[in-house]
Amino acid sequence: MIVDSALYRDGVRIPLSCDKADLHEVRAATTGPHDFVWVGMHEPSGDELEQVAAAFSLHPLAVEDALHAHQRPKLERYDDGIFLVLKTLWYVDEEDAVETGEINVFVGRDFVISVRHGEGTALDTTRLQLEAREGVLGHGPSAVVYAIVDHVVDTYEEVATQLEIDVDEVEASVFSPQRTQDSRRIYILKRELAEVRRAVNPLREPMKRFATGSVPAVSQEAAPFFRDVADHLVRVSESVETLDSLLSTAFDAHLARISVEQNEDMRKISAWVAIAAVGTLVAGIYGMNFVHMPELHWRFGYGYALALMIVASVVLYRMFKKSGWL
Amino acid sequence: MIVDSALYRDGVRIPLSCDKADLHEVRAATTGPHDFVWVGMHEPSGDELEQVAAAFSLHPLAVEDALHAHQRPKLERYDDGIFLVLKTLWYVDEEDAVETGEINVFVGRDFVISVRHGEGTALDTTRLQLEAREGVLGHGPSAVVYAIVDHVVDTYEEVATQLEIDVDEVEASVFSPQRTQDSRRIYILKRELAEVRRAVNPLREPMKRFATGSVPAVSQEAAPFFRDVADHLVRVSESVETLDSLLSTAFDAHLARISVEQNEDMRKISAWVAIAAVGTLVAGIYGMNFVHMPELHWRFGYGYALALMIVASVVLYRMFKKSGWL
Amino acid sequence: MIVDSALYRDGVRIPLSCDKADLHEVRAATTGPHDFVWVGMHEPSGDELEQVAAAFSLHPLAVEDALHAHQRPKLERYDDGIFLVLKTLWYVDEEDAVETGEINVFVGRDFVISVRHGEGTALDTTRLQLEAREGVLGHGPSAVVYAIVDHVVDTYEEVATQLEIDVDEVEASVFSPQRTQDSRRIYILKRELAEVRRAVNPLREPMKRFATGSVPAVSQEAAPFFRDVADHLVRVSESVETLDSLLSTAFDAHLARISVEQNEDMRKISAWVAIAAVGTLVAGIYGMNFVHMPELHWRFGYGYALALMIVASVVLYRMFKKSGWL
Amino acid sequence: MIVDSALYRDGVRIPLSCDKADLHEVRAATTGPHDFVWVGMHEPSGDELEQVAAAFSLHPLAVEDALHAHQRPKLERYDDGIFLVLKTLWYVDEEDAVETGEINVFVGRDFVISVRHGEGTALDTTRLQLEAREGVLGHGPSAVVYAIVDHVVDTYEEVATQLEIDVDEVEASVFSPQRTQDSRRIYILKRELAEVRRAVNPLREPMKRFATGSVPAVSQEAAPFFRDVADHLVRVSESVETLDSLLSTAFDAHLARISVEQNEDMRKISAWVAIAAVGTLVAGIYGMNFVHMPELHWRFGYGYALALMIVASVVLYRMFKKSGWL
Amino acid sequence: MIVDSALYRDGVRIPLSCDKADLHEVRAATTGPHDFVWVGMHEPSGDELEQVAAAFSLHPLAVEDALHAHQRPKLERYDDGIFLVLKTLWYVDEEDAVETGEINVFVGRDFVISVRHGEGTALDTTRLQLEAREGVLGHGPSAVVYAIVDHVVDTYEEVATQLEIDVDEVEASVFSPQRTQDSRRIYILKRELAEVRRAVNPLREPMKRFATGSVPAVSQEAAPFFRDVADHLVRVSESVETLDSLLSTAFDAHLARISVEQNEDMRKISAWVAIAAVGTLVAGIYGMNFVHMPELHWRFGYGYALALMIVASVVLYRMFKKSGWL
Repeated sequence: MIVDSALYRDGVRIPLSCDKADLHEVRAATTGPHDFVWVGMHEPSGDELEQVAAAFSLHPLAVEDALHAHQRPKLERYDDGIFLVLKTLWYVDEEDAVETGEINVFVGRDFVISVRHGEGTALDTTRLQLEAREGVLGHGPSAVVYAIVDHVVDTYEEVATQLEIDVDEVEASVFSPQRTQDSRRIYILKRELAEVRRAVNPLREPMKRFATGSVPAVSQEAAPFFRDVADHLVRVSESVETLDSLLSTAFDAHLARISVEQNEDMRKISAWVAIAAVGTLVAGIYGMNFVHMPELHWRFGYGYALALMIVASVVLYRMFKKSGWL
Repeated sequence: MIVDSALYRDGVRIPLSCDKADLHEVRAATTGPHDFVWVGMHEPSGDELEQVAAAFSLHPLAVEDALHAHQRPKLERYDDGIFLVLKTLWYVDEEDAVETGEINVFVGRDFVISVRHGEGTALDTTRLQLEAREGVLGHGPSAVVYAIVDHVVDTYEEVATQLEIDVDEVEASVFSPQRTQDSRRIYILKRELAEVRRAVNPLREPMKRFATGSVPAVSQEAAPFFRDVADHLVRVSESVETLDSLLSTAFDAHLARISVEQNEDMRKISAWVAIAAVGTLVAGIYGMNFVHMPELHWRFGYGYALALMIVASVVLYRMFKKSGWL
Repeated sequence: MIVDSALYRDGVRIPLSCDKADLHEVRAATTGPHDFVWVGMHEPSGDELEQVAAAFSLHPLAVEDALHAHQRPKLERYDDGIFLVLKTLWYVDEEDAVETGEINVFVGRDFVISVRHGEGTALDTTRLQLEAREGVLGHGPSAVVYAIVDHVVDTYEEVATQLEIDVDEVEASVFSPQRTQDSRRIYILKRELAEVRRAVNPLREPMKRFATGSVPAVSQEAAPFFRDVADHLVRVSESVETLDSLLSTAFDAHLARISVEQNEDMRKISAWVAIAAVGTLVAGIYGMNFVHMPELHWRFGYGYALALMIVASVVLYRMFKKSGWL
Repeated sequence: MIVDSALYRDGVRIPLSCDKADLHEVRAATTGPHDFVWVGMHEPSGDELEQVAAAFSLHPLAVEDALHAHQRPKLERYDDGIFLVLKTLWYVDEEDAVETGEINVFVGRDFVISVRHGEGTALDTTRLQLEAREGVLGHGPSAVVYAIVDHVVDTYEEVATQLEIDVDEVEASVFSPQRTQDSRRIYILKRELAEVRRAVNPLREPMKRFATGSVPAVSQEAAPFFRDVADHLVRVSESVETLDSLLSTAFDAHLARISVEQNEDMRKISAWVAIAAVGTLVAGIYGMNFVHMPELHWRFGYGYALALMIVASVVLYRMFKKSGWL
Repeated sequence: MIVDSALYRDGVRIPLSCDKADLHEVRAATTGPHDFVWVGMHEPSGDELEQVAAAFSLHPLAVEDALHAHQRPKLERYDDGIFLVLKTLWYVDEEDAVETGEINVFVGRDFVISVRHGEGTALDTTRLQLEAREGVLGHGPSAVVYAIVDHVVDTYEEVATQLEIDVDEVEASVFSPQRTQDSRRIYILKRELAEVRRAVNPLREPMKRFATGSVPAVSQEAAPFFRDVADHLVRVSESVETLDSLLSTAFDAHLARISVEQNEDMRKISAWVAIAAVGTLVAGIYGMNFVHMPELHWRFGYGYALALMIVASVVLYRMFKKSGWL
């Protein structure tokens, strides 16, 4: 689906005289040296993509990538243009899960085509914000690429922040006084972190190339801005590594805790067994059949025996309580 | 065994006037500047390979490698040709196992010789598909190398997908409510992943060389296509690493689970022991031989004692049930 | 807040004729070729920062970074100046915690602007010490950068020393004869170490660039001094890695200890159960109803039975004591 | 001990007119431009080595290394010659152990001196095979170096194969239905793998230098052959890493197994305890002294009680059997 | 303290006409082009070091480093001289501990100043040995640097050998039939290894620079000698890594062993409990109050009951013995 297509001249959106889906016409309208077209698509069909490819002479390999999605993040040069693949990430609160989508961007001298797959990281707001800043948009396609990348990396930071909260919760759970089953949660979080890592890390290299101004289609003066994005990306990446290693440690602590709990249970059980055993022993003693057992003939012998059991139990109970076994 | 040999001119298969096994004749038929021969062999004998080597002046070390198979994936330059070793992988459903074979490819200015070992990744379909695309095949030996490599890497992706399914199953098993023995399965999966890694990782370097167009026998314009293959290879490689580390975490979770189960068993056992102990204690008390024990003379003393045992047991049972021990 | 701003000429502070907050005036006062201004700010508002940026023509991206803080340590070149981000660390004794702040430094040919966030690592003493050493301050902005970086890295070393003490305490606790719960403490220390690592490691690269004299705004002759700082940084970094791996080993030892303790508890419990069981067995024997049981008719049969129980218990107790079970 | 010394001219062994131990004479016999001497020694004394060093002007540091052995594998250039240190490995079946020796090779324009330490990897067969291939030996000292290195790396592959078999055995043992103690075996295998790694890995760099033809004393045309050896070396090295990581996983599985066995034992024990407890409870009940207990007066009350015990035990036994506890 | 200072000319010690502590005079005595002074100090005071610094114009940063010690091993160039920091290691047998000291070496065209901190690795013998070898000492300051470095690295090898012995002991202890507590010992050894690593690893880079002859103050012809030292250093470093990873495996084996022991204890305990339970059950049976229990009236019923208990116990004991539980 073509979400929007527009012609920009000196940072200002020029009303189109043709249908926004008639891309040949749209492109033909780029008459000035700094004019450019930005076409935004969302999960286009093969046909739609074919038309775009024809109108802007896109490289067939890149078009195929954009159609099927599920690529690694990458930056490729084709003749006079570039092709950029970004993974989008968003956090679904209800499931504590990270979902992934994809944005493919084709950039040429006079056009930007963004192809979005999946729910997250819509670009309409990005376009609106950009259109509101004439000065920035006047830098041409570079500005659009920067705006998209900046927006995507911002969502990475949000996801990382969510995952930090999740890790904090796990941490609180592991060290809480309650008994908790955290291994499943830790496993799932580690899987989510692996997901983020797969989106973030392969993007570092392309961002570095943007940041050093070594990508031809991106203007040299945009370099500091991409450097800023690259910095954010590194921060997300380091944050993910730190979270992952914290989770490993938390898991070990969880294991240690299970052992400690087992020990406590065993001691508690043993204490009660001991208390019962003392009662049984006393009962056994007065169940012996000796002819000469004075207590058996006492008036309150039976009461005495019961009292003996209770006293012994209470004494034991207090001893165990004191030593921390109960 | 020589599976097939054919002469191609401008992307079209030229009928041979000689026997397809008479390789000297076949090669002699390459008269045009863009003619080339593609010989496909499957587990050839030493003699067969000798004949090919003689007809195309292959380097003896490469021929020896192709005969014995069991090489690491590699790309080597010999004078004016290259020698490429690829591992083939296929997944045997019945055994959840990954099997490995090998393809050796000799490439010269006017010939491609592919030598296949093992069952998997047959190349006849590859040849047919290629013959159907005249434009592609017209690029000469490079096109054949690309087609073979692309096919092999595609099978890697299939294997990786199968292993992802296996890991998902292990994950489901580890966290299922049933008690499961997963350590063996995890071990075997890790061994399979090591197998895949040994096929995939050493190939990354050669693919990069193809992708940057720095291999003389491969035409410059094929570079973007190899870049695509290299990308897929990296994706498989990263996928394998992620699976391996997920398996490690799953194994830890499995260990934690065993501990938790042990704890649960111990508590369950202890609860039952406690219930039995209470009955025994009551029986012991009324087995005492005191002269003055009023209950002993009650009409329904015996029934009362049994009732006491049962009531105590039920009360304990409920307490344990409530606290989660039973 | 502008903490202080001053004009230095040949290493000497020149009294200002204008208000120290009127930065345009302050800058205008730099008439000599080696004059420079050092403005120190603490958590400035956006407005304050805007004024500084206007007075010294700072790059908007750097200004934004300085306003929001929470950057990675980094060194960036903008046209004719540099922008340096440092994390500050301080150790809060009451909580055994490492807190982090940030210092941003803008350096130009004739000015240094330091923007500090968070409580730690105040720079007033640094300024005073520097003003006391005319010779050093005469080297211009480089001297100020060096003084700040040196001060920050010194605090890193203090923090590392504190953490070493903490690790020593954990180590003593893990191997103490008392039973201790160390996994939480180890977890938190590992988290603190991750915090330090995030401050220290990204700074190594910028320090190396200073140390090799490859940063334009920093004079060549300051290189050995920065080399010294870089050395300290590496030492802190290595110390952190060593502590982290020691903690991992300590954690494993802690786990081993829990297992050993469990074993000891189990043996102790079992020994007492055995002692009780022997008493019960003796009582059971003399509770049998055989017609012919000579002991039952003995004068001191009962006493003999009790003595038997006590002797058996003492013998068992001694055996267990000797074998180390009690 | 000087094992053999010979003069080769154009790949053919020339009978010596002097004693083979008179090395000055032997060397003096190299008159042609392609003549060279190969002296083979086995654990020479200091004196013997001194004589060789004098006859061939070897560098004193290299001579000292060759005398004491216990060096890391390395390749060093001295003026116009090279000095190569190789570790030899052999597998002692009786002890499942890997033993290590050493071969030092001095190479000059017109000589090769091989000094062997330890039992393994004798070089007489290597010499004989080489003398049988005139064409190869005609390439001069390079051919000898290649033959020695090729032979040594072949033995590495044999050792690696043996260790693979050992790992397979451990794997079978860990997952066998019998209870096994595998931790010691795994530990020893890991130590053997460390041994192999120490021989193999430092040799990779020298082999690469041979393979790229960047060692002056080795002829350029030998490069593809050394490339082949380098390939084998990498394969051994990767195989060792894979085995090592498989052993780690096997060890973890072994640990999991111990836990599972403990659990099984505990449940088995508990089941039997429960069966005994039921018998004791029944006996306790009929040991109570109530005046009115009808069963006590039954004709077959005693038999009935015994039957009750047996039935209860059998029922419990079946229940435990069914639930897998017994 | 100035331990010794001497003037060397062409490898021979020249008697000084002035006090050896009057360093200005000593230096002034270096008249020949190859004359040089070697001053040896041990834990000098600030004053002493100031005098040396003044006499030889040492760089203040290096002097400060030499005064405070506790530096990382490093090699620094200052104008026309170098400054080398080495850690010294020695093994204290009584405590199985590795102690560390430091040697700082200043080298100029005509002087060497060695500053030693801590007990170990005294240099007097090094000086004596060097003075005995005129030829070597004739190479000037390089020879002294080599002698010191060689001596220091030799002590590293001794320490590594000691630690290998310790690891062998731990290994023997872990796998000995006795029950042992090895986790503390393993922890401490790992800490010692970290200590050695911190001394050895940072020195590898400087040694490589010496070995490639890229340090100006060290003569080119000394390079092979430093290459030898560098080799030893790498060997120590690899040995430390191997020991560390062996210790990790040994620790895991120790953990496995604790689990196995726990299992054995549990089975042993359970066996004895079963034996006692059988006796109690028999006693319970004959304690029942049935009117018709023939055994109770037997002449030797009591003896028969005791015999039953004993026989049952012996049978059970044998069964447990056979199955390995006792």
